[in-house]
Amino acid sequence: MTKQIRLEKEGGALAPRGFRAAGVFCDVRELGSGGKAEPKRDLAILFSETGATAAGMFTANRVKAAPVRLCLERIGRGSARAIVVNSGNANACTGEQGDRDAAQMAAWCAEALEVDPGEVLVASTGRIGAPLPMSRIRNGISQAASLLGDSPQHAAAAAEAIMTTDTRPKQVAVSFRLGERRVRLGGMAKGAGMIHPGMSRDGREPPPRGGRLHATMLAFLTADAAVAPDVLQQLLEEAVAGSFNCVTVDGDMSTNDTVLALSNGLAGNPPIEKIDSAEAALFGEALRCVCLELAKMIVRDGEGRHRVVAVRVEGASDDEEADRAARTIANSVLVKTSWHGGDPNWGRIMDALGYSGARIEPSLTDVGYSAPESRRILWAARGGEGTDTPFKRLCEIAALDEFDLHVRLNLGSGRAVIYATDLTENYVTLNKGEPGKPESLGG
Amino acid sequence: MTKQIRLEKEGGALAPRGFRAAGVFCDVRELGSGGKAEPKRDLAILFSETGATAAGMFTANRVKAAPVRLCLERIGRGSARAIVVNSGNANACTGEQGDRDAAQMAAWCAEALEVDPGEVLVASTGRIGAPLPMSRIRNGISQAASLLGDSPQHAAAAAEAIMTTDTRPKQVAVSFRLGERRVRLGGMAKGAGMIHPGMSRDGREPPPRGGRLHATMLAFLTADAAVAPDVLQQLLEEAVAGSFNCVTVDGDMSTNDTVLALSNGLAGNPPIEKIDSAEAALFGEALRCVCLELAKMIVRDGEGRHRVVAVRVEGASDDEEADRAARTIANSVLVKTSWHGGDPNWGRIMDALGYSGARIEPSLTDVGYSAPESRRILWAARGGEGTDTPFKRLCEIAALDEFDLHVRLNLGSGRAVIYATDLTENYVTLNKGEPGKPESLGG
Repeated sequence: MTKQIRLEKEGGALAPRGFRAAGVFCDVRELGSGGKAEPKRDLAILFSETGATAAGMFTANRVKAAPVRLCLERIGRGSARAIVVNSGNANACTGEQGDRDAAQMAAWCAEALEVDPGEVLVASTGRIGAPLPMSRIRNGISQAASLLGDSPQHAAAAAEAIMTTDTRPKQVAVSFRLGERRVRLGGMAKGAGMIHPGMSRDGREPPPRGGRLHATMLAFLTADAAVAPDVLQQLLEEAVAGSFNCVTVDGDMSTNDTVLALSNGLAGNPPIEKIDSAEAALFGEALRCVCLELAKMIVRDGEGRHRVVAVRVEGASDDEEADRAARTIANSVLVKTSWHGGDPNWGRIMDALGYSGARIEPSLTDVGYSAPESRRILWAARGGEGTDTPFKRLCEIAALDEFDLHVRLNLGSGRAVIYATDLTENYVTLNKGEPGKPESLGG
Repeated sequence: MTKQIRLEKEGGALAPRGFRAAGVFCDVRELGSGGKAEPKRDLAILFSETGATAAGMFTANRVKAAPVRLCLERIGRGSARAIVVNSGNANACTGEQGDRDAAQMAAWCAEALEVDPGEVLVASTGRIGAPLPMSRIRNGISQAASLLGDSPQHAAAAAEAIMTTDTRPKQVAVSFRLGERRVRLGGMAKGAGMIHPGMSRDGREPPPRGGRLHATMLAFLTADAAVAPDVLQQLLEEAVAGSFNCVTVDGDMSTNDTVLALSNGLAGNPPIEKIDSAEAALFGEALRCVCLELAKMIVRDGEGRHRVVAVRVEGASDDEEADRAARTIANSVLVKTSWHGGDPNWGRIMDALGYSGARIEPSLTDVGYSAPESRRILWAARGGEGTDTPFKRLCEIAALDEFDLHVRLNLGSGRAVIYATDLTENYVTLNKGEPGKPESLGG
């Protein structure tokens, strides 16, 4: 984070001026409250008191959930007033009924907030293939609309409502000066498994750097800057490419992945209208910071995960090849299980590089380990062969909760970083599902 | 298997006339005998008493082990007399020393068998990145060469010697009539994890049907037919495409995958010299049968696996797209964990199809389940939406040890079958390795 950008202590998506939110429990999964006095919230509304510029990034999966299709249609107008989100049901593979239900969610929300229904965006996450329980959703929307507020507690309630298998809410906010005005930028996210984002602007083009968004990873970003819609969209694309599209938990890409950004101008700055201006660069850097912090929270909360590994590839023919090499390592089941065991197994890294499709020369390839972001790299292999670094010292690094894996291909200047988790017995247990329990299905 | 091809009860790779083998323990892993009276054998020789036609298929991984490089050089001559194989050490990522060691193995074997060193092929499997313990290898070769025999016990000892994490040896043999002669064809294989074969003739071209060989999967096939080298090579390629290249355990492709075939002509048939002859077709079919049986044994012995699933995709735009869709499903960590849970989770299948890269129309896509090779398919989803098939009945099939998953894309006539395993906690435990134990590293 550059010096100009300051981390805010609290507020998340409500740190910027003029936003309100609520998170409520309306039992989307139809399980009853399970006897709990306070069951987990499952429906949230995020609302901008004034008109806001809007931008979005969506899963590149060819099977897109109904709310993703709705957002893809509406995001083109470049403005929105509210986002309504439910967890517990993905409204995916639900046919035309799913489209009608997503539109109905927006319509109920618009009615309660007295805004244009076309200005409401929708997101869902949870079980694939079951219709939304619409009467519960209606209750939830009406309840949430009546509880909107701008306190940190309201932000926390909304961040909780979008969680599925997450073990904790994910929020962050930053601020920076634009001339005489202080701009605030915040966000909340959810994700845990099914994380391998490959988002693109229209859900169609191959996303930048060959990535895919695969999660159900949801993120909702807010800002109070005045910014033109096309500038916001481009800055969001760049921020996602360098953050959410660089994390992977299991290599699976969801039907529902969505990142939405609203910016309402209440900071009073002169509008940012040129992508190549200093103001756009600063705003973009702040957006990237928020996205990267949220992305790292997602990886650290990866289902059943034990370790977080930053896979750093350098010296590839180009950035795209570096990205391919890093992703293949980060998604290799054998590499991930060895990380779980704390095993600095460079042979499996070489093996994964070999089938990644990236250009490599085994006899030029180096593999090393370091503490997070440390420059003291211990090399396990140089030129494709083992070094005499004591195995015990490599093990000490591989035993850390977080470490960096360094791959130098020594072919060119392409580089990439992917943040990944290990693969644990616990991940399998969490995801294997129990056929009697429909909530075990992910989406 | 067609009526003309008969399964032989025993003999494996020694069922054909004129082959001898031995499997011995020479402690490649340098662990001592572990106090066991009969530690697992780890070095095998397979020998043809007369000159034999030879063909091979090798990993498409860009990081190739030294023995693979040796075989790639020698297979071009189209003939060989012997194969020497060790388990416990892959001789991969071992630089020029590795190449010298592989050549030395062939030379020692040739000396003991009194054949041309260029007529000996080499294969290794086990830990990546450590030099071969050559004095032990030398002892093993000398011991094995002195113990060669053609009994089923000799075949079993060799099949045991090539195992790593396999829980049982894998052997099969068939026979068929060519005119007045009975031809025998047999083989042995090893594999367990790191299975996602993508073998090609020269280890370079993309293999047929987009597959990759990734295992350390080794298979050694023998026959007593007289067959021209180019015919044997082409029939082997077709057999591998329809067998080893259709199985996946974990999606990882090894540095050492090798399939070698020797055919020595002792059946006395008129030589098969034309690829489009009836004799070649029958020989090819027998070869495919042997490969498919061995491939299925590999999947059934998949590391920690609990279930075997045949992923059958039909109606794709072409066979290649069908293959891509089937492989993506078969390697999705989320799909594999749901199989482990006995969960007929068609939402995760749709999700994987959506990011497979294959052309799909969600509203045309059907997903169903059946008992193995049964025509009674229970459809879980039709046209991309759930059916009213009782969930309980789907669960009954998903609870079977083996079942078929049917995907109909309804776009064209492309089809593919991939045999896959589930992903279990036990797989993770087996593969996570313990840093102190070098034998835990795979290759």
